[in-house]
Amino acid sequence: MPAMLGQNQYGKAESRVVRITRNGAVHHIKDLNVSVALSGDLTATHLTGSNADVLTTDATKNTVFAFAKEHGIASAEQFGMRLARHFVTSQEAITTARIRIEEYVWERIPPSDTREARHSFVRANRETRTAQITYDGERWQIISGLTGLTVLNSTDSEFHGYVKDRYTTLQETRDRILATEVNARWRHGATDDAGVAGADWDDVYARARDCLLQAFAETYSYSLQQTLYAMGTRVVDRCPGIDEIRLSLPNKHHFLVDLEPFGLKNDNEVYFVADRPYGLIEATVLREGAEAGLAVL
Amino acid sequence: MPAMLGQNQYGKAESRVVRITRNGAVHHIKDLNVSVALSGDLTATHLTGSNADVLTTDATKNTVFAFAKEHGIASAEQFGMRLARHFVTSQEAITTARIRIEEYVWERIPPSDTREARHSFVRANRETRTAQITYDGERWQIISGLTGLTVLNSTDSEFHGYVKDRYTTLQETRDRILATEVNARWRHGATDDAGVAGADWDDVYARARDCLLQAFAETYSYSLQQTLYAMGTRVVDRCPGIDEIRLSLPNKHHFLVDLEPFGLKNDNEVYFVADRPYGLIEATVLREGAEAGLAVL
Amino acid sequence: MPAMLGQNQYGKAESRVVRITRNGAVHHIKDLNVSVALSGDLTATHLTGSNADVLTTDATKNTVFAFAKEHGIASAEQFGMRLARHFVTSQEAITTARIRIEEYVWERIPPSDTREARHSFVRANRETRTAQITYDGERWQIISGLTGLTVLNSTDSEFHGYVKDRYTTLQETRDRILATEVNARWRHGATDDAGVAGADWDDVYARARDCLLQAFAETYSYSLQQTLYAMGTRVVDRCPGIDEIRLSLPNKHHFLVDLEPFGLKNDNEVYFVADRPYGLIEATVLREGAEAGLAVL
Amino acid sequence: MPAMLGQNQYGKAESRVVRITRNGAVHHIKDLNVSVALSGDLTATHLTGSNADVLTTDATKNTVFAFAKEHGIASAEQFGMRLARHFVTSQEAITTARIRIEEYVWERIPPSDTREARHSFVRANRETRTAQITYDGERWQIISGLTGLTVLNSTDSEFHGYVKDRYTTLQETRDRILATEVNARWRHGATDDAGVAGADWDDVYARARDCLLQAFAETYSYSLQQTLYAMGTRVVDRCPGIDEIRLSLPNKHHFLVDLEPFGLKNDNEVYFVADRPYGLIEATVLREGAEAGLAVL
Repeated sequence: MPAMLGQNQYGKAESRVVRITRNGAVHHIKDLNVSVALSGDLTATHLTGSNADVLTTDATKNTVFAFAKEHGIASAEQFGMRLARHFVTSQEAITTARIRIEEYVWERIPPSDTREARHSFVRANRETRTAQITYDGERWQIISGLTGLTVLNSTDSEFHGYVKDRYTTLQETRDRILATEVNARWRHGATDDAGVAGADWDDVYARARDCLLQAFAETYSYSLQQTLYAMGTRVVDRCPGIDEIRLSLPNKHHFLVDLEPFGLKNDNEVYFVADRPYGLIEATVLREGAEAGLAVL
Repeated sequence: MPAMLGQNQYGKAESRVVRITRNGAVHHIKDLNVSVALSGDLTATHLTGSNADVLTTDATKNTVFAFAKEHGIASAEQFGMRLARHFVTSQEAITTARIRIEEYVWERIPPSDTREARHSFVRANRETRTAQITYDGERWQIISGLTGLTVLNSTDSEFHGYVKDRYTTLQETRDRILATEVNARWRHGATDDAGVAGADWDDVYARARDCLLQAFAETYSYSLQQTLYAMGTRVVDRCPGIDEIRLSLPNKHHFLVDLEPFGLKNDNEVYFVADRPYGLIEATVLREGAEAGLAVL
Repeated sequence: MPAMLGQNQYGKAESRVVRITRNGAVHHIKDLNVSVALSGDLTATHLTGSNADVLTTDATKNTVFAFAKEHGIASAEQFGMRLARHFVTSQEAITTARIRIEEYVWERIPPSDTREARHSFVRANRETRTAQITYDGERWQIISGLTGLTVLNSTDSEFHGYVKDRYTTLQETRDRILATEVNARWRHGATDDAGVAGADWDDVYARARDCLLQAFAETYSYSLQQTLYAMGTRVVDRCPGIDEIRLSLPNKHHFLVDLEPFGLKNDNEVYFVADRPYGLIEATVLREGAEAGLAVL
Repeated sequence: MPAMLGQNQYGKAESRVVRITRNGAVHHIKDLNVSVALSGDLTATHLTGSNADVLTTDATKNTVFAFAKEHGIASAEQFGMRLARHFVTSQEAITTARIRIEEYVWERIPPSDTREARHSFVRANRETRTAQITYDGERWQIISGLTGLTVLNSTDSEFHGYVKDRYTTLQETRDRILATEVNARWRHGATDDAGVAGADWDDVYARARDCLLQAFAETYSYSLQQTLYAMGTRVVDRCPGIDEIRLSLPNKHHFLVDLEPFGLKNDNEVYFVADRPYGLIEATVLREGAEAGLAVL
């Protein structure tokens, strides 16, 4: 039984493009990391080494930079859509394009007595905003999200009532730190040209991020699962365009240090932050009736 | 339209276990990083905060360490299978367990005139061996693989004959360095108890790794796609138990440095190694007739 | 000629301590990474294996956590001073203690209509604040600083008039992006108990950070060296307690993309961000008359 | 009291150069990461923005690549010496050059029945070899070393008899795992042209590395300090050209897992590998009579 070629894709990963827009003396900055993956009928390339149907990954990179000039970068999603459409419509062999983007946020260095805030920036190092745009010539899948948003509640978290098997030694607790690094991907419901054209991607992002933060802060938690579900539900409830959200929440353990050997009482004051291992809680929350479309990693 | 819970899983990620086995004065070492993900009917936990069906992630970690003692670690796959079966058969609410393992290789420090090689090791820092075992109480999916195997051919690689669109500036070449960091996952065909029980996982690993290296070295390459396909085909052809392999190959660009401004000719001797961006070539090679089972990331 | 022991030190590195302080329902958080290095007469330990003079690194870690409880964490500098004094005064064999601390900043999750801002935090991911405290039983060396403060001017930077040797190919420019990741260490002038006791470390930090940002933004730059010197001078001028500052500034190259092959003009709009190699500019700025005390790495 | 400029240096960091040498059909590879730092009278650049004395960092990078072609790369040390001498002798303003190099090792992919081992390589991922060459026009300082050499003894390590203060809770042990990641820098005694010209740098490296491994393996250890000293002494004793070695050894803790709650006895078989915190043991070993020349970081 010989071998045969299955799903395949290729492109240039991690093109780091910075776009400056000058409104007179006031500058604006967009800072992206763009990865292109193209797929279609590329059997000949794999089997014979013929490159007749191959647009080089170098050209896909050039396209990223040229489009940044020609069209500007309104948002990661809008920029990714423009790229995806270009590759699918201009290359005969390419039937699907997937663009992944990370966006880094910069803030203006505050003005001083002697200087206006015009063209000087400090990188915010906030969470990374992400976008994944997939287009097959007809339908769009737009997945936005964020990584690296680290949050912590210093109380209002309990954990007890769980299964006790032979290997359970964990003590129950009525007051603990709950901390996690939010990694979220949410899928926009609209999939046709009309539906995706009008979205205000920056606004949706700001709302979703705010929902995640507020739900985390407001949930009196009996488990990270419960907090996760509250966060996902809040996003689906308050963001009408989002049909589905996948949350991956590492439980960043803060262990209460035993200070008794030193004659000290630790009233939930001093914690040791552990690196590994860590609990990892993952779930999808869907709008009722929506079909699951987010990959489980 | 209210929200509802979709696919979910939880467990302890990255338990770092070292197991020493003593054969008299001669010691053996196994060094693993084990991640457990359990899924089943855990709706109550997410919606109500009840933990009545939750085996703690702490207990899943304890199980990893206890099993290392009780059963030893014959191979990553065998150890993962034992863990997966345990969670599915012992926990009523758990219907599926997925165990992911990274294995780090140690070599013995060579003996000297005054010392035998018995209990002293140096970490090989070779590629990381990986295994992912999924069990639903009936069927097994065993995916083995490796990451971080970096290879380079300093000749026998050409690249030309590709599409030239408006954004193509790349020059064709008849002699270039081809280098990549092999990331591979291969799926074993057998899925029932009988089929997976007898496999010699270390032997399969050694064969698959050797196929990847040899096919990379022997292929006169007209594109990384072609080299990838040759590597995947070699594995499927020579390893009867493997039905499918997914390769993800970053093109680690080595650019020829232009030395003409300095009055020097660069006869494919001096290269600049770039970090980003990089081409990323990914494809699955399947045994004919096999169904695709590897996720596309 | 036999070997002999030279300078040596030991201790526990990277104890990750989080301290929560509760003012009624309002919580405050301090998040540090603390490394202890002790030195003194430890020859016996090295030569004979006797541990009679060795305080274990485990005990130094315990001390970090116990002191967080007993004394709280007013600032990284104050906490480090308390630890350093403890080790030097309580251990006969220890003559010098050096404490290195990294501090991570958390911000409150903003309140909502239904919730006050009391015990929920989001990690700011700003620059990391650093402190290094060295004490020999008599004199203090206090070095504060920061790492990872990334800044960018999108104009007001030129570079020309440099040496042209045989290997120079760089084109001169009258308008470029200037970007760097500020890594700074500054030394406080006072070294006796009286001098270091009264310092308001948080205030000095805020001032020094502000000086760095403002000087970077205000300097019309002809080289990163010139910008560096302006930044260092600003700190020494405006922060009377600081005698010396060492800046290490990688030139985070933003290369203008050549869009001419695509029929486009790049008016300083589209840049490619390179990872490696990078220029690295390092210098110390001293208060006149001060002796250099910062190590050159 | 105004500010003044202190020690300063600049150059291009992390130029990644690969040099292929072709002996007929058999190729050889050298893979380096080269960082240049130049210093001299550069006050004008810092104070006035004049670049009249500045060789661009771009030109220093070009020099690295051009020299790789013109002179080849016999060893990291030899290559670094050539670069250092060039900058000091060709640039009037430059009085000192410091070259830092990391070297990555590649091995040949073993031959097969149908293929000789000629131009296919696999990266060994062994420890990284390092070299630092400093030249002031007259004298040389050559510091070689390695990082990332991780070693482990699964027995023959005890730890007891240490100080017990109020914060000591560690239990004494008569049998533990001792593991560390060796970071070593050693200084060659010769400093004039004649002394450094004749050294066989590859041979010295191989000897020093072997001494470190053998001494680690052969030492029955009562503390990591003792093991460190044995390693350093071995190098100084057996490598006549090395006058001084600095070792930085993180104690990579392998904690015995408590299996008693599960009714299991842990006979030094199952260990949990911790990330942070870690003990950090550092010391210099000197040839008697030699002056200390290695920086304490």
